[in-house]
Amino acid sequence: MTALRVAVIGAKGRMGAEACRAVEAADGLELVAQVDQGDALEALVAAGTQVVVDFTHPGVVMGNLEFCVRNGINAVVGTSGFTPDRLDAIRGWLAEQPSVGVLIAPNFGIGAVLMMQFAAKAARFYESVEIVELHHPNKVDAPSGTARRTAELVAEARAAADLPAMPDATTDDPDGARGAKVDGIPVHAVRLRGLVAHQEVLLGDAGEMLTIRHDSFDRTSFMPGVILGVRKVGSVPGLTLGLEHFLDLG
Amino acid sequence: MTALRVAVIGAKGRMGAEACRAVEAADGLELVAQVDQGDALEALVAAGTQVVVDFTHPGVVMGNLEFCVRNGINAVVGTSGFTPDRLDAIRGWLAEQPSVGVLIAPNFGIGAVLMMQFAAKAARFYESVEIVELHHPNKVDAPSGTARRTAELVAEARAAADLPAMPDATTDDPDGARGAKVDGIPVHAVRLRGLVAHQEVLLGDAGEMLTIRHDSFDRTSFMPGVILGVRKVGSVPGLTLGLEHFLDLG
Amino acid sequence: MTALRVAVIGAKGRMGAEACRAVEAADGLELVAQVDQGDALEALVAAGTQVVVDFTHPGVVMGNLEFCVRNGINAVVGTSGFTPDRLDAIRGWLAEQPSVGVLIAPNFGIGAVLMMQFAAKAARFYESVEIVELHHPNKVDAPSGTARRTAELVAEARAAADLPAMPDATTDDPDGARGAKVDGIPVHAVRLRGLVAHQEVLLGDAGEMLTIRHDSFDRTSFMPGVILGVRKVGSVPGLTLGLEHFLDLG
Amino acid sequence: MTALRVAVIGAKGRMGAEACRAVEAADGLELVAQVDQGDALEALVAAGTQVVVDFTHPGVVMGNLEFCVRNGINAVVGTSGFTPDRLDAIRGWLAEQPSVGVLIAPNFGIGAVLMMQFAAKAARFYESVEIVELHHPNKVDAPSGTARRTAELVAEARAAADLPAMPDATTDDPDGARGAKVDGIPVHAVRLRGLVAHQEVLLGDAGEMLTIRHDSFDRTSFMPGVILGVRKVGSVPGLTLGLEHFLDLG
Repeated sequence: MTALRVAVIGAKGRMGAEACRAVEAADGLELVAQVDQGDALEALVAAGTQVVVDFTHPGVVMGNLEFCVRNGINAVVGTSGFTPDRLDAIRGWLAEQPSVGVLIAPNFGIGAVLMMQFAAKAARFYESVEIVELHHPNKVDAPSGTARRTAELVAEARAAADLPAMPDATTDDPDGARGAKVDGIPVHAVRLRGLVAHQEVLLGDAGEMLTIRHDSFDRTSFMPGVILGVRKVGSVPGLTLGLEHFLDLG
Repeated sequence: MTALRVAVIGAKGRMGAEACRAVEAADGLELVAQVDQGDALEALVAAGTQVVVDFTHPGVVMGNLEFCVRNGINAVVGTSGFTPDRLDAIRGWLAEQPSVGVLIAPNFGIGAVLMMQFAAKAARFYESVEIVELHHPNKVDAPSGTARRTAELVAEARAAADLPAMPDATTDDPDGARGAKVDGIPVHAVRLRGLVAHQEVLLGDAGEMLTIRHDSFDRTSFMPGVILGVRKVGSVPGLTLGLEHFLDLG
Repeated sequence: MTALRVAVIGAKGRMGAEACRAVEAADGLELVAQVDQGDALEALVAAGTQVVVDFTHPGVVMGNLEFCVRNGINAVVGTSGFTPDRLDAIRGWLAEQPSVGVLIAPNFGIGAVLMMQFAAKAARFYESVEIVELHHPNKVDAPSGTARRTAELVAEARAAADLPAMPDATTDDPDGARGAKVDGIPVHAVRLRGLVAHQEVLLGDAGEMLTIRHDSFDRTSFMPGVILGVRKVGSVPGLTLGLEHFLDLG
Repeated sequence: MTALRVAVIGAKGRMGAEACRAVEAADGLELVAQVDQGDALEALVAAGTQVVVDFTHPGVVMGNLEFCVRNGINAVVGTSGFTPDRLDAIRGWLAEQPSVGVLIAPNFGIGAVLMMQFAAKAARFYESVEIVELHHPNKVDAPSGTARRTAELVAEARAAADLPAMPDATTDDPDGARGAKVDGIPVHAVRLRGLVAHQEVLLGDAGEMLTIRHDSFDRTSFMPGVILGVRKVGSVPGLTLGLEHFLDLG
């Protein structure tokens, strides 16, 4: 079998370098180009790239994507900053290249994505749900983006199932702790030296609790999701938002 | 809206009595008959029963089901002991009553069913998976039936994804602890005074772990699943095995 | 061996009734009197009571204790509302009866007391510590009294060890979640249907985390602490505040 | 304040190199010598070493210790292989140098030591106790040494408190899982890709459970224990076995 020809843009960045290593280590993938600031994108075409991995930044990613789509190169994108206008522009380019696929994902951690999807699927069966996220103490924002997104998905699922507000008799809670109520879902934020990135979703009903927890110990945990995206993006034309759509969760 | 007319067979048993209470407490359901040993099944017809809940025992359940199906009554069954032959017999009766639905479920705990389904869906993304089940010390068998069933589902999912055997460098493990390897999946069985029924599925890959845990504190935790089955069984003709098919997990 | 003669005051209350059952079930203890509203305390003397268990209320407990101490009866007290003035009064009565012991404890859960003691002992070795308490959604106050007390003990231990403030880079946390910062220790309060009373103390430092968790599933979990107090109070003259002093934790 | 003069023997090994970094980073400590294979121990004296850290191997550690003790240098030792005969020899050398202190510790993880000590202290209050240890799948032995040691300490505490055998109604457990019963305490061994070294001790009694869990994410987690030993060993003359004796756990 011929190896899939893969290039990485932003190859010298922290995530890009990790992606280069992961592509090189993966069966059936060949790393044919590494592009970073100052390199010409034409190198991608010269190398016969079939799939690009983009871990760059919002200032350059649109140019990268326009070049790739117009040249028939599929793309797996971990860069952030996609507004609705930007997504429309990408859809426009893709309309002219109907065989090209682009995957944009805010989170390539398969475990984190599974946690969010499972929490959303379980939510309509439970009277109560709260989220506890735990991170290293150098994190500046609380709650985490993953926790906010989980809460939004859970809240959507509860609304779709016409669930009432959660039971909560609290009348005396004068101070507040780190965290937030996101779309009605309490999210608690723990910051502890020694931790990396962890989250648990607690779902409770009479006599039982379901807990879905994800522990991320290391940045390498994002690479299986990137590789999965690289393998699959060529067979899913058009724009896909979120790794969950590639996981065949049914 | 007219209430759904529900009867319980085995109404004086532990689970049956709980089911009677749950039906009475549920919106839109009416408990129209309670049948136990020595009572004639004709009472079900006389009461205009639309759905029966059966928590009896293997010695009588087939008679109950034949009666219900022939009289056009849907059934939700928590009794055990269904062999392939028995299931074929039930399918035969249902073939003559194409509008009747029968749900047979080994476990009505929605949380436990979700745990099993999520574990099976996640399994193909993880190099390693092990199960820890924890129960009160009066339990006579190890591992638990739920843990065995979870392991079977996980092993099926791994096989379907062509995953290799799990990594395990253990060479020195002379003694063994409570539990078993079920279809290649290690299952550890903890027995502790104070516990009821708990299980966690641990899925590990480079740099991350996904944990799905279910805690059952009380027998009442099975009733939402029974009620969900009662509400839905009339719209799913034929034989359904397992509550998961009623949960729309996609 | 002669059985220890025990009486319960507040015998018809929820906790008192549980205490009566626990005393009757315990080896070497005899329940010789049950006193409730309207009963004369003299019955305690007539029954030859050696130890009283008091689960009453702040309005009557001082009278009960004065009577017991003056009559040479040891006391194990789970009632609340003891101000410094009240404690001084009790010490005064005890000074005249130097062989009598009184144990007043805000929490008879041995596990909860161990959790608090262990957390306080571990605190000086860890850069970070936070508390997550989880309760049923009918609880009106947040954080729980046990969590507040744990935080106070942990904060005292950190101060005694001259630890600096915990690391926390959070700059963006606009909303807040249920809970509080108690003496500088973040306490997160989760409320979930299905839970009873649970708490975990998370201690983190470079590359590691120590977690001490207590799950209380049932009110019976307080009785071993009451029985332990009953057995020991006669050999510890004077006033003891807190079950931890009877646990020989070293 | 003059800095404490510290040397590391085995300075090029994995743990020794980590110890060098930790000593250099610690307030009030100065790394004055690094000794490895082929280097003369006299360098320790020449450098004015007050405390040695030894992470070498059983073949050379006795020579190192004899040299240090005879030269009045205190020692913190993480090397293994100390038989009763070896310990007696060390005690003999120390008898002639009554001001020198030697600490030999099988585990410098403060969190792991706290977990073991707390488990032993809690054990006598609980009817049931089991241990679950979780490690990466490259580990060759099961259960882990830390889990075995925890089980031994727990079993000693149960014996000292005259506790009966734990309740266990298991009659059907034909297969066994990874792990062992150590001195009557069930120890379950989980092996999962992505994990490092983790353990939890579960203590159960009527209506409650106490869990003490330690997660070690990184080898750096051993260094605070080494530094604590270095700071304290000079003030504890004679031989000390186990870091717990330096933790003032009371």
